[in-house]
Amino acid sequence: MMMSTGILRRSTVVAAVLIGLLASRALAAPAGDPLPSWSDGKTKLAILGFVTTATRRGAPGFVPPAERIATFDNDGTLWAEQPMYFQLAFALDRVKALAPQHPEWKDQEPYASLLKGDLAGALAGGDRAVLEIVMATHGGMTSEEFTKVVTDWVNTARHPKTGRLYTEMVYQPMRELLTYLRVNGFKTFIVSGGGIEFMRAWTERVYGIPPEQVVGSSIKTTYELRDGKPVLTRLPEMNFVDDKAGKPVAIQLHIGRRPVAAFGNSDGDLEMLQWTCLAPGPRFCLVVHHTDEAREWAYDRASSVGRLDKALDEAQTRGWTVVDMKRDWKVVFPFERK
Amino acid sequence: MMMSTGILRRSTVVAAVLIGLLASRALAAPAGDPLPSWSDGKTKLAILGFVTTATRRGAPGFVPPAERIATFDNDGTLWAEQPMYFQLAFALDRVKALAPQHPEWKDQEPYASLLKGDLAGALAGGDRAVLEIVMATHGGMTSEEFTKVVTDWVNTARHPKTGRLYTEMVYQPMRELLTYLRVNGFKTFIVSGGGIEFMRAWTERVYGIPPEQVVGSSIKTTYELRDGKPVLTRLPEMNFVDDKAGKPVAIQLHIGRRPVAAFGNSDGDLEMLQWTCLAPGPRFCLVVHHTDEAREWAYDRASSVGRLDKALDEAQTRGWTVVDMKRDWKVVFPFERK
Repeated sequence: MMMSTGILRRSTVVAAVLIGLLASRALAAPAGDPLPSWSDGKTKLAILGFVTTATRRGAPGFVPPAERIATFDNDGTLWAEQPMYFQLAFALDRVKALAPQHPEWKDQEPYASLLKGDLAGALAGGDRAVLEIVMATHGGMTSEEFTKVVTDWVNTARHPKTGRLYTEMVYQPMRELLTYLRVNGFKTFIVSGGGIEFMRAWTERVYGIPPEQVVGSSIKTTYELRDGKPVLTRLPEMNFVDDKAGKPVAIQLHIGRRPVAAFGNSDGDLEMLQWTCLAPGPRFCLVVHHTDEAREWAYDRASSVGRLDKALDEAQTRGWTVVDMKRDWKVVFPFERK
Repeated sequence: MMMSTGILRRSTVVAAVLIGLLASRALAAPAGDPLPSWSDGKTKLAILGFVTTATRRGAPGFVPPAERIATFDNDGTLWAEQPMYFQLAFALDRVKALAPQHPEWKDQEPYASLLKGDLAGALAGGDRAVLEIVMATHGGMTSEEFTKVVTDWVNTARHPKTGRLYTEMVYQPMRELLTYLRVNGFKTFIVSGGGIEFMRAWTERVYGIPPEQVVGSSIKTTYELRDGKPVLTRLPEMNFVDDKAGKPVAIQLHIGRRPVAAFGNSDGDLEMLQWTCLAPGPRFCLVVHHTDEAREWAYDRASSVGRLDKALDEAQTRGWTVVDMKRDWKVVFPFERK
């Protein structure tokens, strides 16, 4: 009941705002367009409508500045995630780099297959094999050492299909959206299944999101004085998996306030979208649907990486905004821009 | 080696700055004093010196804005903690309020003693009894329900000695310090052994610190849709204890950046102070020493609550700033002000 009323009221507000927008900056002044990589249409107008009313004091959709919390998934929402999560590509590269220090890996799965170039064989062990690889490559060093390893990797490693740095494979329209929200007083957070320290090594530079606004999966860490110097050591043991129902839990732990806007692209984001939008008051939820095989990838219900099935149905049922990447984005990656 | 050089260089910088300060606003213009509740003297000058150089671009002590992270303990550093942690007073009040729903408590320790008014008997079970009481009073409800219970309590419960609301028993000089740091581009965080959700219910109103900048101990939480409505349920099980070596671990998890300034008052803060100040670059660590029996309490090495022993020694050895509450604070609590 509450939801339908909310949706109806929001639609009315959005419609009213659109008239104003069409008459003013959105079309009349394209030079001042805050979202130049977004095609004109209902998706762009939904975003502009929400932000415009959220920031208009006295409007029914007004959101007080302190409550302007927006959470973004990362893989598949802010940067690409095919043919495998980029962090897994990092882990595989690390196995190769660390192999000389681990002669035993030659006879031990999943390392043996991996070092022979047989990725499918290495990953045949499923989640357990992936966890093994992640722990072996993400644990056993200090936080500072890990940040350096990640920084070196993002500065040099190239995506197999595009030949670009992984940090170039971020979505230009989403970067504009992050900036647009921040300019309008929103605090932008990443809430991702990816590793929290893995992301923090580059999110400030690439997205303008500082470390303290990055929430992700983590491994256990201990503190000690080593030769009189304080160090944090990363243990090869999971601490928290920030995916699915873990996302609202992590939002509460790290942010402590329910977001008013959330952005995702897969079933792993469904609970974050529910927690954000199934509540009274002005709310905005958006799902990025990967529909562009030519410029990016096209995948949804059957994909093993970034599966979008239940969340697509629920977005349609609840009236959340769905980005059709092919239709809604004039540009996907920054390097496409002329 | 690195530390001594750092301390020497900082002392020189501070001395140079003091001359400027003495000649300008600090003494010449008391109306513009950012720390009016602090007595003039070396403690106040150390704070002013650090902040002044941290914000002067080109100065040897300059700290880039993004790195201006300051972390504060809460109990005994921002508000009082005697005769018992205020959160324990909350838990004891909750036991009394919940007793009608728990007839079995009449015959079960630590509740039985507590309900008879025998606090010493109830706490005779040590940490285990306290944990039992905390779990029984902090778990088994939604996050929203818990926030409401805490809010009602801080709005009505009174301190046994002063008769004041607990949220009035905050340190006026520390509130001025929080504001002074924020005005100078520092992001202020609480990093406390207290419960993260317990604090968030009132820290924004009382300290100007928003929920997303509060780090504390936590209990496990689960997410579910209940009758179509998303809820976070607090389980009667510890998730993380944010004390001692847990503080740098939590700082890394929540903030992801090493603070440049840290403020504490007990041995539980020692590792946070080490993590903050045993590193190159401009650093500021401060320990509040409770020396004022008349206006507050006097306690340190032998206290069971807020014991300050090792951290006092280390502060002296390393040259950290120690607040002598009696000497350095003109006013302790806001309600003392004329």
